Order: sequence, then structure tokens, then C-alpha cells
Amino acid sequence: MNNTVQKLEESYKHILQTFLHDKSEQGLYEAQQFSKILLEHQISPEELVSIHRSILEELFPNVSSEVQDSFELLLEVMMGYGLAYREHQSLRDRQK
Amino acid sequence: MNNTVQKLEESYKHILQTFLHDKSEQGLYEAQQFSKILLEHQISPEELVSIHRSILEELFPNVSSEVQDSFELLLEVMMGYGLAYREHQSLRDRQK
Repeated sequence: MNNTVQKLEESYKHILQTFLHDKSEQGLYEAQQFSKILLEHQISPEELVSIHRSILEELFPNVSSEVQDSFELLLEVMMGYGLAYREHQSLRDRQK
Repeated sequence: MNNTVQKLEESYKHILQTFLHDKSEQGLYEAQQFSKILLEHQISPEELVSIHRSILEELFPNVSSEVQDSFELLLEVMMGYGLAYREHQSLRDRQK
């Protein structure tokens, strides 16, 4: 895992913990801002799902194996979105 | 909820249940194919996360409230991806 991803993972963990504690609108606002940072760093949507899964496992080690495994499927479907997104980006770059 | 989304939700539920039961490569392959169908129907990544969340709640009603709530944050971050994706699509359509 490179340094940037590690830092982003720590930020997301912090945002998620605060949100689960406070359930405030502020947390959702922070999530929106965080999403812009992820896009700037070209983090794919499946990477985000993967980060979400590992943080859940870390924060809640008792999460059932079904829920943990379900993320594998969500990740797989999300990869299709990541691919489509990267295709659009390269299309856009070629047309610049 | 419109009819298409409802049908897609049923398909995803079926794929997820089979995957959680068999844990086979076949399930991951089905997820890949399903992701193409979602993209064809212009289902946004946040809609997929929302579908995933509701099916988990349906299949595993005992999922902790923290895990359920965590999806709200994942959804919010994913919205940024959905927005970027739609912007790219409209850019592509304009350039046709």
C-alpha cells in the first residue's frame, strides 16, 4: 500500500468514526469533500469500497463473515464502474 | 422505485445469495456481467451501494446499526464518483 492510499485510509477512518459517533450533517459534508480528494488522487471506486471494507473489519471485528464476504461481490461489480470511468478519462485526455 | 431498478435489485440479490452460499468464481463472473447491465441502464455507483445496503438489511436483519450507518457515508462519498461519471458522459455526448 503506498503512502497516499494509507493517508487517505486514515482520513476516511477518522471521518467514518466521527460520523458513526455523531451522526451529524457535518460528517456527510466531510464525506463529500473527501470524495473530491479521492477523485483528485484518481482513486477508483472499487478502491474506495476496499478501504471501506478494511476499516469496517478493523473497527468492528465481529462483523459477520457474510457481510464481509458480500463486499467481495460489491467490489467486483464496482470494478466495472472503475473501468468505465477510466475509459472516459482516457477518452477525455485524448480529445484535449 | 421503478420497475427496472426493482428487477436489477432482484438479480443482484440472487447473485449475492448464490455467491455467499457457494463462494465460487462463477459468482464473481456473474457480478462482472451484472456490472455491464447496470452501466447499460445508467445506474449510478451510489445506486448500486444503496441496492447492496438494502439487500444486506433484508438478508441479515441483525447487521449492527454501525455497519448499516456506515453505508450512509460510503453512499455519500460514492455520489462524488457518480457525479464525475455523469459529467464525463455528458462531455462525451457533446463531443459526438
